[in-house]
Amino acid sequence: MTKKINIGILGYGNLGKGVELAISKNEDMNLVGIFSRRDPKNIQTIFNKTKTFSLKSLEEFKEKIDVLILCGGSRNDLPLQGPKYAKEFNTVDSFDTHAKIPEYFKSIDSVAKSNKKVALISVGWDPGIFSINRVFFEALVPDGASYTFWGKGLSQGHSDAIRKVEGVKLGVQYTIPSNEVINEVRSGKRPDLPPYKRHKRECYVVLKEGADSKEVEKNIVTMPDYFADYETKVHFINEEEFTKNHNKMPHGGFVIRSANSSQEHNQVMEFSLKLDSNPEFTASVLVAYARACYRLSKSGNFGAKTVFDVAPSLVSIKTDEELRAQML
Amino acid sequence: MTKKINIGILGYGNLGKGVELAISKNEDMNLVGIFSRRDPKNIQTIFNKTKTFSLKSLEEFKEKIDVLILCGGSRNDLPLQGPKYAKEFNTVDSFDTHAKIPEYFKSIDSVAKSNKKVALISVGWDPGIFSINRVFFEALVPDGASYTFWGKGLSQGHSDAIRKVEGVKLGVQYTIPSNEVINEVRSGKRPDLPPYKRHKRECYVVLKEGADSKEVEKNIVTMPDYFADYETKVHFINEEEFTKNHNKMPHGGFVIRSANSSQEHNQVMEFSLKLDSNPEFTASVLVAYARACYRLSKSGNFGAKTVFDVAPSLVSIKTDEELRAQML
Repeated sequence: MTKKINIGILGYGNLGKGVELAISKNEDMNLVGIFSRRDPKNIQTIFNKTKTFSLKSLEEFKEKIDVLILCGGSRNDLPLQGPKYAKEFNTVDSFDTHAKIPEYFKSIDSVAKSNKKVALISVGWDPGIFSINRVFFEALVPDGASYTFWGKGLSQGHSDAIRKVEGVKLGVQYTIPSNEVINEVRSGKRPDLPPYKRHKRECYVVLKEGADSKEVEKNIVTMPDYFADYETKVHFINEEEFTKNHNKMPHGGFVIRSANSSQEHNQVMEFSLKLDSNPEFTASVLVAYARACYRLSKSGNFGAKTVFDVAPSLVSIKTDEELRAQML
Repeated sequence: MTKKINIGILGYGNLGKGVELAISKNEDMNLVGIFSRRDPKNIQTIFNKTKTFSLKSLEEFKEKIDVLILCGGSRNDLPLQGPKYAKEFNTVDSFDTHAKIPEYFKSIDSVAKSNKKVALISVGWDPGIFSINRVFFEALVPDGASYTFWGKGLSQGHSDAIRKVEGVKLGVQYTIPSNEVINEVRSGKRPDLPPYKRHKRECYVVLKEGADSKEVEKNIVTMPDYFADYETKVHFINEEEFTKNHNKMPHGGFVIRSANSSQEHNQVMEFSLKLDSNPEFTASVLVAYARACYRLSKSGNFGAKTVFDVAPSLVSIKTDEELRAQML
């Protein structure tokens, strides 16, 4: 092992914590420290040895950090941080507002190029690993149909929506893919169904004292955009059960393609994830791609990039010779 | 669409036929023709418009073929053809003798480099797409275990072995992965089992007249290397049933990894294929990677390459802008 890759973490929520954990699992990586808007003295890290710094001091680390992993949110943090930090650092982020990716890419590409930096954007599992499978599947057998199913998993946006309903004290929402539709697709059928026919929603709610469960249920299942189109079940539970069984962030899903290589022959390709922890997995993906980001910068391949631009060998700790001998 | 990619097919067995079919499904490709050791007049192609040529005339097509797809076998054809044709053509092949890949790579790399050609070797699903998933899975969550299961699928080598047993008129062998072990791995367990504990073998045999079924069965199930270690079932059927039900070449399998992102959280990643036709799918993969081979050659990235060296965007017919807007 030669020089380690020096990583900085910007932002320390669930994703930043996951990145701290993931770096400890990769022996070619060194965590320089966590940079946060909060007072660094008040940040409780997972590992005692992890250093914390004020975001204001980040500039002093320009020469000490090979890749800065941006762990902020897609709505408020990354649209500003992405272009800003691509001036001074190689960056990796998990920007996941699918519709705005082209615009986000554009806001970073020329900045990164003119400063000779690599900005690897929209890394994670969707967008990310799922996207790679969608591209491979379509390219491998073009005459067919691809499907993405999400879940079973906790949806942060839908859980937030439930918690805004009057009378709700605590609430979470799980997205559940339809097993019937999955099995249809696996069997070679190609149903033409919108997402709300391919998924169900299950809500677990703790009521505020005196709240009317019928009223709360009605306000949830009829909520436009979030629930109205979907088959939605609301379960009312007590606080003890909620705290015990609904404090995790599992997620996952499936990308499935059914396609014809000839009139007679159907080919089914499937990729799936079953994640105990959504943020820890996303963080693990970010760290593997930080390796790729570092290597792209070393080879002078600057600019904004996505997972589509990264050859598999670039994410692996193994050498090309080891990969050919052990993994092909 | 600008210029089409001009493809040549060398060898016209099941794989070459699959390539002919796959090219017809990719509108940016043009099939220049099939080159064979056989008399081109005697070759019955799938499409009437497909041209056939004698292998001897291949050299005249040096300037007319962008990528030559080598459709020969790994034992006798490719070890000679790979290094030979990498002198004059960009090539893609499906060399699949796993243990000999490093040696095969070495025999081609310098030839391709010094002649400014790209030779994309060992393309298919295993080695190939399965290998990519093994690499991604390990890199994404390093602390865990990966498993490859093959089947249900027809194994050519084992079918050949059966047919050499005295008293066997017709025979095929299917490799079947153990559902119990797959479910164990999916549930997060990491059993330490050799391939013969993770797969079963099923044989379908038509006896020669007067052959003793007990004797044939014994000679199959005790055959060293091929069957002795495995749970093996032999079914005796009549010729009519054999011809009706066992004339296809289905295959497939699973790559599954179970790994820890932290002590508490297990993450399960799974990739699978269910193929009606093994050779047609392998051929489809070869054709998608012919596109990547062409693009690598255009960018001056010469030498022997494997699927590990190819970024996902290179296999897709879509532009980078389209990929970011539609597929991320």
